[in-house]
Amino acid sequence: MRIQELISGVLAGERRAVARAISLVEDGDPGLEGLSAGIYAATGRAATIGLTGAPGVGKSTLAGEVVRVARAQDLRIAVLAVDPTSPYTGGALLGDRVRMQEHATDPDVFIRSMATRGHLGGMALAAPEAVRILDAAGYARVVVETVGVGQAEVDVAAATDTAVVVLAPGLGDAVQMAKAGILEIADVFVVNKADRDGVGEVVRELRQMLRMGAARGWDPPVLQTTALQHAGVDELWAAIEAHRDHLRSSGALEDKRRARLLREVEALAAERFRVKAAATLAHEPALAADLAARRLDPYAAAAMLVREAGAT
Amino acid sequence: MRIQELISGVLAGERRAVARAISLVEDGDPGLEGLSAGIYAATGRAATIGLTGAPGVGKSTLAGEVVRVARAQDLRIAVLAVDPTSPYTGGALLGDRVRMQEHATDPDVFIRSMATRGHLGGMALAAPEAVRILDAAGYARVVVETVGVGQAEVDVAAATDTAVVVLAPGLGDAVQMAKAGILEIADVFVVNKADRDGVGEVVRELRQMLRMGAARGWDPPVLQTTALQHAGVDELWAAIEAHRDHLRSSGALEDKRRARLLREVEALAAERFRVKAAATLAHEPALAADLAARRLDPYAAAAMLVREAGAT
Repeated sequence: MRIQELISGVLAGERRAVARAISLVEDGDPGLEGLSAGIYAATGRAATIGLTGAPGVGKSTLAGEVVRVARAQDLRIAVLAVDPTSPYTGGALLGDRVRMQEHATDPDVFIRSMATRGHLGGMALAAPEAVRILDAAGYARVVVETVGVGQAEVDVAAATDTAVVVLAPGLGDAVQMAKAGILEIADVFVVNKADRDGVGEVVRELRQMLRMGAARGWDPPVLQTTALQHAGVDELWAAIEAHRDHLRSSGALEDKRRARLLREVEALAAERFRVKAAATLAHEPALAADLAARRLDPYAAAAMLVREAGAT
Repeated sequence: MRIQELISGVLAGERRAVARAISLVEDGDPGLEGLSAGIYAATGRAATIGLTGAPGVGKSTLAGEVVRVARAQDLRIAVLAVDPTSPYTGGALLGDRVRMQEHATDPDVFIRSMATRGHLGGMALAAPEAVRILDAAGYARVVVETVGVGQAEVDVAAATDTAVVVLAPGLGDAVQMAKAGILEIADVFVVNKADRDGVGEVVRELRQMLRMGAARGWDPPVLQTTALQHAGVDELWAAIEAHRDHLRSSGALEDKRRARLLREVEALAAERFRVKAAATLAHEPALAADLAARRLDPYAAAAMLVREAGAT
């Protein structure tokens, strides 16, 4: 499929074109630049929702429930399940998607796992482009589900309009999340599996941690769901929509999107420069030899590479 | 303290200078370039050991035990405990260090927690410079302990000569590690808390995962320790030393260090370029406006920034 065809297909909302376009993002395909240029004008309409939490809290089930509520309102919705790349796990994680199979035949639902194999800058830079593809394809809501609570997941969640952080009783994950800095970026908290013992404890621990954080003009609500029994999901949906309305009415939505766009461009530029720097090091054996022989230190070498590029 | 004084102090192995120098790394202080240049020639002697694993496996206790064995051989040793930055956790993680307090009065042991507040590129770029400071200060072994098993921890562990991955029964952490790609970078596996039920299961699960990985010329041993009872630690030390001997005799040590040095320089250069790109975006409102209005897409903007810097 040629890039022009692919762009037309994405803009027409064709599933096959959307799937192929996301594969280009995963692979860091050279055609990505043409694709990006071709779809960008059609983006900005989708509301994006991050769904982050430790393995086992029930994120996939919850994502399936969010899809159900969106479909009841006749909204087209996409779920992008973002996985770190490991040769060991592809299969297992794809298996999780089975939980969302009830939506598999709905033409207005798009569900896709995503890994990065070739995209420079990893998932933090690949995910936003994949989200723009889904946005351009006309999905009114794009849910980005991550698999864990590390820095990569924080970066991905921070690149959505509304970051939902999911916990569950008995996992002791609030502390782990605090360590990863994920509590600071949450707009909505959900304690899922709320029919289990210890739910009150998780909610209390969470609220205590939140009191220690800085005020932000939006108090993240702490909700409870039992996704397997469809309990609490309407409230979750309402909280997500309320957060977006808050961003819209306060003018913060445009500011937030603009700021993260600039950060993304800076990071994309830095990754491009990294490739240039690697090429320079490969083609200037004297520089690499000076480094190895400790005649030139890493910071001085980096400064030299930037200076030599005329970027001072 | 002026940079020249600081450099002399580090090279003389003075604790106060070493501590201050690591603080400069944490803060991304402008004096870092002078410091890096001043100490680099004195580096390369220390053997570096990564200690990575999920919270709760007993990494700090194990690090304390490794210190004990090193001291019994009269080796100077440093432990750098690398934490992701979060305003919530500084105290709690520092508390962990208490477990290593038995070595606090030993002048030939240096133990330090580290966070990054200002260093560009985060921990993956800050940790190697901190390790070089300890190396230049004459510590024969530098242990880098991380707090979790995310991508940031993998990056830090991959920047040591010997990456030790720690597990414990009952945590189900092997699968989580596989997802983070940490199994691929391990040179030595330790199942700590080996007096607990389920140790055999963890060892089996681990060996099964290892069989799925690619052969690498070094078969990572799977050891068992009960660090609190000093059990198995001599074997762990022997495995670490055996791995380094293997790297040395095969010539892989120099290759490995040279390769990671080049990657570090590329990343440092990319981070410097990112700052330049941000400045350009801030000073060219037309560029930012074109982006926001979707007349210019992120990939094209990034290409333009690199091109404008003369780096094509």
